[in-house]
Amino acid sequence: MAAPAKNKIFWGSLVHSKTLDELEYLHDTAVAVDAAGKMVAIEQGAGDVAKAVETLLPRLGWAEADVDVVKAKDGQFFFPGFIDTHLHASQYPNVGIFGNSTLLDWLNTYTFPLEASLSDPAKARKVYNRVIRKTLSHGTTCAAYYATVDVASTNLLADLCLAAGQRALIGRVCMDQLSPAYYRDESPAAALAATRASIAYIESVDPGMKLVRPCLTPRFAPSCSGPLMRGLGALAAERPDLPIQTHISENKNEIALVHELFPPSSTGAADDSYASVYDAFGLLTDRTILAHAVHLGEAEADLIATRGAKVSHCPCSNSAITSGAARIRWLLDKGVCCGLGTDMSGGYSPSVLEAARLAALVSRHVAMGGDEHAKLTVEEVLFLATKGGAEVVGLQREVGGFAVGMDWDVQLVGLGTVDAEGGVEGVAEGTEEDGNVDVFGWESWPDRVAKWVYNGDDRNTKKVWVRGRLVHERIHS
Amino acid sequence: MAAPAKNKIFWGSLVHSKTLDELEYLHDTAVAVDAAGKMVAIEQGAGDVAKAVETLLPRLGWAEADVDVVKAKDGQFFFPGFIDTHLHASQYPNVGIFGNSTLLDWLNTYTFPLEASLSDPAKARKVYNRVIRKTLSHGTTCAAYYATVDVASTNLLADLCLAAGQRALIGRVCMDQLSPAYYRDESPAAALAATRASIAYIESVDPGMKLVRPCLTPRFAPSCSGPLMRGLGALAAERPDLPIQTHISENKNEIALVHELFPPSSTGAADDSYASVYDAFGLLTDRTILAHAVHLGEAEADLIATRGAKVSHCPCSNSAITSGAARIRWLLDKGVCCGLGTDMSGGYSPSVLEAARLAALVSRHVAMGGDEHAKLTVEEVLFLATKGGAEVVGLQREVGGFAVGMDWDVQLVGLGTVDAEGGVEGVAEGTEEDGNVDVFGWESWPDRVAKWVYNGDDRNTKKVWVRGRLVHERIHS
Repeated sequence: MAAPAKNKIFWGSLVHSKTLDELEYLHDTAVAVDAAGKMVAIEQGAGDVAKAVETLLPRLGWAEADVDVVKAKDGQFFFPGFIDTHLHASQYPNVGIFGNSTLLDWLNTYTFPLEASLSDPAKARKVYNRVIRKTLSHGTTCAAYYATVDVASTNLLADLCLAAGQRALIGRVCMDQLSPAYYRDESPAAALAATRASIAYIESVDPGMKLVRPCLTPRFAPSCSGPLMRGLGALAAERPDLPIQTHISENKNEIALVHELFPPSSTGAADDSYASVYDAFGLLTDRTILAHAVHLGEAEADLIATRGAKVSHCPCSNSAITSGAARIRWLLDKGVCCGLGTDMSGGYSPSVLEAARLAALVSRHVAMGGDEHAKLTVEEVLFLATKGGAEVVGLQREVGGFAVGMDWDVQLVGLGTVDAEGGVEGVAEGTEEDGNVDVFGWESWPDRVAKWVYNGDDRNTKKVWVRGRLVHERIHS
Repeated sequence: MAAPAKNKIFWGSLVHSKTLDELEYLHDTAVAVDAAGKMVAIEQGAGDVAKAVETLLPRLGWAEADVDVVKAKDGQFFFPGFIDTHLHASQYPNVGIFGNSTLLDWLNTYTFPLEASLSDPAKARKVYNRVIRKTLSHGTTCAAYYATVDVASTNLLADLCLAAGQRALIGRVCMDQLSPAYYRDESPAAALAATRASIAYIESVDPGMKLVRPCLTPRFAPSCSGPLMRGLGALAAERPDLPIQTHISENKNEIALVHELFPPSSTGAADDSYASVYDAFGLLTDRTILAHAVHLGEAEADLIATRGAKVSHCPCSNSAITSGAARIRWLLDKGVCCGLGTDMSGGYSPSVLEAARLAALVSRHVAMGGDEHAKLTVEEVLFLATKGGAEVVGLQREVGGFAVGMDWDVQLVGLGTVDAEGGVEGVAEGTEEDGNVDVFGWESWPDRVAKWVYNGDDRNTKKVWVRGRLVHERIHS
């Protein structure tokens, strides 16, 4: 599917987040993207594609023969690719399988056995290829992946992301305690050595970390001994170019466990909060992605804001395995940067659009608890899915919106148009190729976007590009 | 798409609810369905389809030439069609459009203008055809529809259901107060006359109410004057063969309004609960479908149980427009019969499978509030979607499961099978024809069903029959 790198001009309607609560609609707009995948010019109101091309070519010094023109159909729009700020590639086969469990029994019953089994390279290839294709098909242009403890298959995940063209953070999972003997690092030293080995490999296959980058990944505090946490903190200081990802405050029993395992007397932490444990080990930084953050205390959230650490909100997972309802408005009001995570397989859905939808619903459940202000709008959940997510993974200068100098990590979205007899224009009955978004014709652009957020699925993501490269395309796009 | 009525034998795996908390898996099973759409024999463990046919034909006195054999592919299964116990056909174009509104402002801002506009027959045809095709494609074999105040377009909805072959309850909406002047019944007498006119029409087009039946539909207490409610109560007594549908206790402001409009002194009700208002007017019966039931009091729920009235749980709507989290376990424990409703367009999704999924999530939010027992399992939400729903709409003898004497209202479900390279067997890349359910091969049957509940969509509903008639088929089924 990879086209040879060529200059491109994209033409049509563009929609992206201007701010947390405002979408910008750019119609009749042309975007010139160079062979390296960077936006080099944006021309609004060109009138038609021919005029836009005519204006842009001489300005950019491009010859017509060297340019591919990609035109959105009427009603379609370009939208920034989604950023999935938290998911476990290795748990993908278990999506939807969690019964009535909660975090700690879910880990032992469903999760550790599957993760351990991925040291089989054939199985890892099957699972990782599938999760990459699946998430790309849902418009996820960048994913912050947890792999497993195993270095070889973690490195394979990086190889497969490179081959498929998906931007990714790749985390070899560090865990040297409180998991079954068949699935953990043998010692802090072994965990650190394995982490360094995976970092070195990933840097060797993608020099300059243009597409994939290693991510320091202490699974979560209960899985890591003090010495391992200390070692990872030192490594984080040694490599200020690497992101860090972990979990925080997902489940009340987990929090109790952290209190028990890491009393302030053992870590030198300022207080007994979960965030302070990471902070004491040098792991609460402005490069740190904290998944969940459901049950944070006031001072703890303030500490996270002060350190500039980021939160990955995973509403699907939090509801599915009964963790709780994260207070995202409260975090945003504190200035904490938030994005969305599918958290497969705690979450069942591979779709960041579904995560956005569920973020809206969960915010309404928080509102029902008494704080009407908690409700997130369509505009806000789309911000979390794109610009917010980009900042969470440290790529806000590269991706998340349309601007000269940013990379073309973009999806083309198309919705269905209902005809007079109640069919869909251009779609054979029995295919439902345009999915479940039905446009009747009288809807405003914001209404169409709301319909997409609430009923859209991968059928509406017609094409996906990462750094200008076409990485997914529906047959009927 | 309608085939001529013929005897049929269906062969393969069947899954249905045995009880609220148990699914039954019937493999290598043949079901004989006569030309009228009734199951006349079920043969388990026949070994293969040829043997099953050989056994069944002489027993039934059927000639081979008169029988169509429908074989499920490996891994596919027959599942009872879904019952959508509450949705507004007339609001379908607004799905996903609700902003941050709650019930009463949502009605005035989004809903009444759209409903009123459907007195235009061309618009009504477009909208109603679309909602019928859409819900059929999601496996909804029976829907309890609200239409509008307008008799002609309500009758058109019945015609279109008959033509498409969808089983339906059709409600002409009664409302003579507290809505805009452009959209309400002129008087109680006018409302009752219009209701009778619609009943007469629907009975004339489907004598015996085999597929469609009229449903008495006081919109909700605040929309109906005392005289209108009294008249509808009298009509309900006159026609014990007709179901009744309305809303109850969806939103706190709505409940306050009911208290204000219908003090017990005005109705003779036993207390000031919302349910007692319906009861005082003779509308709280064992044929009554009460949508929502979010904020019921203890005595009120007991009254509903005593009267044998049914509850349509609409989790998508209740979360989307911030109504609340209904306590379904609590109602089930009281012996109240419950089913699921999409409640479009308060709910955004046309899918009862999505309603089942959200019922599981909402039950987890109730559990997070302190009642761990509240959590609904995959088995329980599927019961609500089928057997529970059948009882809610009064058709438990006809539909909702597999048994001799019941009607073949069934969907054929197929899931995707991941191949060694991470593609899907038999599915071209870029089509994702099998949707988002990925089976890796090692999953148990209950795991596969759980995967379907959490990630399934209309792409997994390969074929749909109502009363033995094929009413929907995917091109690649």
